[in-house]
Amino acid sequence: MEKLYFASDYQEGAHPEILRRLESSNLEHSPGYGADAWCASAREKIRSACKCPDAEIHFLVGGTQTNLVIIDALLRPYQGVIAADTGHISSHEAGAIEAGGHKVLTLPNANGKIFASQIRKLLDAYNGDANRDHLVMPGMVYLSQPTEYGTLYSFAELTEISDLCRENHLPLYIDGARLAYALACPENDVTLPDLAKLCDVFYIGGTKCGALFGEAVVIPQPGLIPHLFTLIKQHGALLAKGRMLGIQFDALFSDGLYEHIGISAIRSADRIRSALASLGLPLCFSSPTNQIFCILEDALLARLQDSLEYSFWEKPDVSHTIIRLATGWATTVSDTEALLSLFSSLMQHK
Amino acid sequence: MEKLYFASDYQEGAHPEILRRLESSNLEHSPGYGADAWCASAREKIRSACKCPDAEIHFLVGGTQTNLVIIDALLRPYQGVIAADTGHISSHEAGAIEAGGHKVLTLPNANGKIFASQIRKLLDAYNGDANRDHLVMPGMVYLSQPTEYGTLYSFAELTEISDLCRENHLPLYIDGARLAYALACPENDVTLPDLAKLCDVFYIGGTKCGALFGEAVVIPQPGLIPHLFTLIKQHGALLAKGRMLGIQFDALFSDGLYEHIGISAIRSADRIRSALASLGLPLCFSSPTNQIFCILEDALLARLQDSLEYSFWEKPDVSHTIIRLATGWATTVSDTEALLSLFSSLMQHK
Amino acid sequence: MEKLYFASDYQEGAHPEILRRLESSNLEHSPGYGADAWCASAREKIRSACKCPDAEIHFLVGGTQTNLVIIDALLRPYQGVIAADTGHISSHEAGAIEAGGHKVLTLPNANGKIFASQIRKLLDAYNGDANRDHLVMPGMVYLSQPTEYGTLYSFAELTEISDLCRENHLPLYIDGARLAYALACPENDVTLPDLAKLCDVFYIGGTKCGALFGEAVVIPQPGLIPHLFTLIKQHGALLAKGRMLGIQFDALFSDGLYEHIGISAIRSADRIRSALASLGLPLCFSSPTNQIFCILEDALLARLQDSLEYSFWEKPDVSHTIIRLATGWATTVSDTEALLSLFSSLMQHK
Amino acid sequence: MEKLYFASDYQEGAHPEILRRLESSNLEHSPGYGADAWCASAREKIRSACKCPDAEIHFLVGGTQTNLVIIDALLRPYQGVIAADTGHISSHEAGAIEAGGHKVLTLPNANGKIFASQIRKLLDAYNGDANRDHLVMPGMVYLSQPTEYGTLYSFAELTEISDLCRENHLPLYIDGARLAYALACPENDVTLPDLAKLCDVFYIGGTKCGALFGEAVVIPQPGLIPHLFTLIKQHGALLAKGRMLGIQFDALFSDGLYEHIGISAIRSADRIRSALASLGLPLCFSSPTNQIFCILEDALLARLQDSLEYSFWEKPDVSHTIIRLATGWATTVSDTEALLSLFSSLMQHK
Repeated sequence: MEKLYFASDYQEGAHPEILRRLESSNLEHSPGYGADAWCASAREKIRSACKCPDAEIHFLVGGTQTNLVIIDALLRPYQGVIAADTGHISSHEAGAIEAGGHKVLTLPNANGKIFASQIRKLLDAYNGDANRDHLVMPGMVYLSQPTEYGTLYSFAELTEISDLCRENHLPLYIDGARLAYALACPENDVTLPDLAKLCDVFYIGGTKCGALFGEAVVIPQPGLIPHLFTLIKQHGALLAKGRMLGIQFDALFSDGLYEHIGISAIRSADRIRSALASLGLPLCFSSPTNQIFCILEDALLARLQDSLEYSFWEKPDVSHTIIRLATGWATTVSDTEALLSLFSSLMQHK
Repeated sequence: MEKLYFASDYQEGAHPEILRRLESSNLEHSPGYGADAWCASAREKIRSACKCPDAEIHFLVGGTQTNLVIIDALLRPYQGVIAADTGHISSHEAGAIEAGGHKVLTLPNANGKIFASQIRKLLDAYNGDANRDHLVMPGMVYLSQPTEYGTLYSFAELTEISDLCRENHLPLYIDGARLAYALACPENDVTLPDLAKLCDVFYIGGTKCGALFGEAVVIPQPGLIPHLFTLIKQHGALLAKGRMLGIQFDALFSDGLYEHIGISAIRSADRIRSALASLGLPLCFSSPTNQIFCILEDALLARLQDSLEYSFWEKPDVSHTIIRLATGWATTVSDTEALLSLFSSLMQHK
Repeated sequence: MEKLYFASDYQEGAHPEILRRLESSNLEHSPGYGADAWCASAREKIRSACKCPDAEIHFLVGGTQTNLVIIDALLRPYQGVIAADTGHISSHEAGAIEAGGHKVLTLPNANGKIFASQIRKLLDAYNGDANRDHLVMPGMVYLSQPTEYGTLYSFAELTEISDLCRENHLPLYIDGARLAYALACPENDVTLPDLAKLCDVFYIGGTKCGALFGEAVVIPQPGLIPHLFTLIKQHGALLAKGRMLGIQFDALFSDGLYEHIGISAIRSADRIRSALASLGLPLCFSSPTNQIFCILEDALLARLQDSLEYSFWEKPDVSHTIIRLATGWATTVSDTEALLSLFSSLMQHK
Repeated sequence: MEKLYFASDYQEGAHPEILRRLESSNLEHSPGYGADAWCASAREKIRSACKCPDAEIHFLVGGTQTNLVIIDALLRPYQGVIAADTGHISSHEAGAIEAGGHKVLTLPNANGKIFASQIRKLLDAYNGDANRDHLVMPGMVYLSQPTEYGTLYSFAELTEISDLCRENHLPLYIDGARLAYALACPENDVTLPDLAKLCDVFYIGGTKCGALFGEAVVIPQPGLIPHLFTLIKQHGALLAKGRMLGIQFDALFSDGLYEHIGISAIRSADRIRSALASLGLPLCFSSPTNQIFCILEDALLARLQDSLEYSFWEKPDVSHTIIRLATGWATTVSDTEALLSLFSSLMQHK
């Protein structure tokens, strides 16, 4: 029996429509570095989806790359970025933000989220500190939607953070690596146009949402970051054959594909969540998108090694492990069924 | 009439065999970050082509990215990298090496090349300087094969530089962004196994040599750079769906494709060079690979704008421009003929 | 009445013996950058006081500077430094460590201290994480003796940390900005020779301990950091007239001055601590060296503004402030008496 | 016989007036980090000497430190600094500017100087390059007055550069490490008020001009660099006992001391230059300030080793060396006479 792959949402190739366009355009000629017609078309479609006709849009290759380029570009050397302690930049990017010279000012998360009240308190502490000139100045806010724990910011929560940021002249940046899975989620009440209104910069994730690779950075107010093109080049993040990114995002933003591509993944994830609960397997916390976090005894987990690819998350104690399962746009109903059988059989022979 | 594209060797898609494999493998599952079977297979094929069975191989996305990651990884903070003043890192990477904290110690080029004697002189000046502790220590050597001017290092020249580097404990790193066009060139006497013997690190260019994107870093002596994986991640250079790179290099290193993919480009370039000479258009210097540099009066150049995509190189004076034409693996005989007709017609109506 | 100065231990000039030597040597000629006879003599005296005849010794100007140079020199780019969340590098150096590219991996402090058990747990979490290649690797440990809260590591505690560090090949670095006040403290059981045995690098603070400025970095195993001189220069931390540092440390290490210079400051601090306790003013925690942390109602504090220079520490709530009082080598008995009168009068008229 | 010290202008202590003030103020109390009355007084005196009543003034410890802090603060990450190839930042600061992430865009010097025409040409090349988004953008200009070769910019030359800079929105920064020797030079026609008018930032050197250490950064238009205090702290360049710098610059700017302190050094240097010429010893080039560069046969030089401290400059060929002799504010007439005797005797017994 073939192994089941639920380790992440980037373990397959791309949506077939993307491959079709790569194929059909393969021997066309075009200028490099994103100056081609495919990129122009993709930008137009994204602007339209975001209802933000003037937005500046850049295509980068991956999420960590996008985070380090944008954060370095938004901050001045004396500033740091406010983020949840579970934020991708805080924990899983090998120190990329610090390598760019900036401190991540972490706040304790609640199921992956942080709140306006926490940010306000941090700003008050900074502003009220008589020695603040010896401290790292808070320079921007980083959020993920959905978060690294699969949870969602509500429109009300984001609005409160956005208002606070604007009051304090802090750019708000949202990492949308898995944004398609937020947009596809029934619980979600934050649309692309909402993001374009509430954020200063956000990125629409491609890699985990149907592309071979690629992230689309949206800057609703064009010109916010002078010379961003050169900064992208300087960080080694400028793709020579930039049209590869244009072709993919053009496909993802044709016929509403991006808004729909995550729907089946959410359905699968919901199905898995309820099945695990029925089997008495505890979820770590409730999250409505495509990631499922559960705690397993190490002895049980050992019995899954040959049949299942999952993600190690952390060890809460010596005999248990928290694992992450992720569905994706390419997860089939039969994959899901096979996973449920596997767990069901595991628990029966416990 | 459609425009002719000779601006660069990355203005099309990929070799059809690459697209075929992306298609056929599209819904296979595999682990991320280069731990998949396609990467493993590509690594084996590259090791075999380099006759270097122990080589450590990493796949990155682009050339500037590869240069900045590898150079930052090889140097200590008090060291700089020796390079030609025309080297890609010296001139066209937006200060990526300096952004990583390192000085580029430039030597004047001769048609894009530097020589062992120049490097020796620089080392002697450093070692003979009583205040050398106040200077940037030369820490490695960067070369390009072929160079940014399309010229080639001979086996004898590279051997002399390599010997000097080893004597002085300087890692030698070769940027092979266009390596396929060196390997395909009749004048070339440096093979992949030669590079593996003479260098400490080199990269085999994919982006300009038939891939959609991708560069393969070869480290003949494995373990030379501890924790390179984490450094790649930290620089935002780790592709989540790493197999995209494995699939492409597996194709490029099947059936000797990489060694042959540049042959037609060299033939076209040779044909263009002799035609331009016949037309009385001066080449800037003699280079045997796929790049052609020629000087044109600005008035003539203006008449080409609508028909030809070329690369601006520099302005030697107020009324002339040096342009670069590049052929590539995808340049057809009819493209070449059309270019020659265009120039022929231009010179007739001068 | 003149204001009372208890804000910090660097609010006066230097020990008179230092001024005497600066005066008498003023028109002597000597080579620059620490190659002079005064530096040589000071190095010998420090080696002798540390019972470490081979130690490599560098003189720098200030504490933040020393921390950023040494930490940057000890870490590789993929590594971070473990420190208490109250460590000077974590909180009060304006992001200097991150500006050098490194993450500070903070552990929660207990009265300014961290313990071997916490460090072990952090290392275990790192080593046990299946994705550790995506994390910042713990690369060294930073401690302060005394801590930023005036507390002391015992010999047993330091030995346990040192053993753990050596087992895990982590350099142990101790910030001794106020080391004289540890050495002068009756509770202290860690000598200079102990530090030289237990640490890989530590610095002996001058600025806060009787010098005009200056910190002496001690590297018990010479050659541990190659090209440290050049790194010091590169960070702008190399004093041209290096002998200024040699003269000061030569004075501080003549006739056991450094070991004794803090004694009167400890006596004053002890006296202040017991007086505040008698007056019913709560200390934040018990610390035996020259810093005193107490909580005051803001209304009371306001009445001290014109008579007392103190350090703002933090606001535990809206109506109270934690302040720091520091005695120093130059604090006189009459200063101390005046301070006690001030507080006594404040509490009487509360 | 004692050795003669002409290696540099920082081989003694400080002007006696500085020591006197350090002595008399030693046990005064004052706040740290430059917020004391001495610094305030020194700032006022400097503003007055510069006829620039609003200037923002910061005191730093050394020249390389000042250069790296100011240049990093003035540039954005995508920018580099234009400088002579012989500029201190280009050659003798161990890569400090690159360690801060910025390229030094060097221009060939003429006796240490660069000219407006060269800068204009560089800007034109950048602006005229179709690929300039892949290049480092010129972001500011760095000059030294006097230059590293002892030569001087005239008022006309500086004005031309300043005009060009303002036209192109490039901050102009002048390194005045040896500024006192320019101000004392009969040939000089650039005053402190001129510098304040022509530059965006400049620093008045203390270390080489009579202080124990210290450089005064003058920013004629206050607020030009936001949060410079924090940047100074972050670079480890903030002196805790900041008043040490205030005391020294207060002395240097009392009674016109700074404008006069270099006069005797220039007289000595002139005397040495004419004596060497009479002896047939060739000067490398004509420079009017306190540095003298001459070429000596290595055989002759060897005979000076025991009697003279000089600076190695470079080796023009295998049998000759260029050395630098520097006079200073503390050079006595008898030192000068002794040096002339030494050379005279050397040449007689050649």
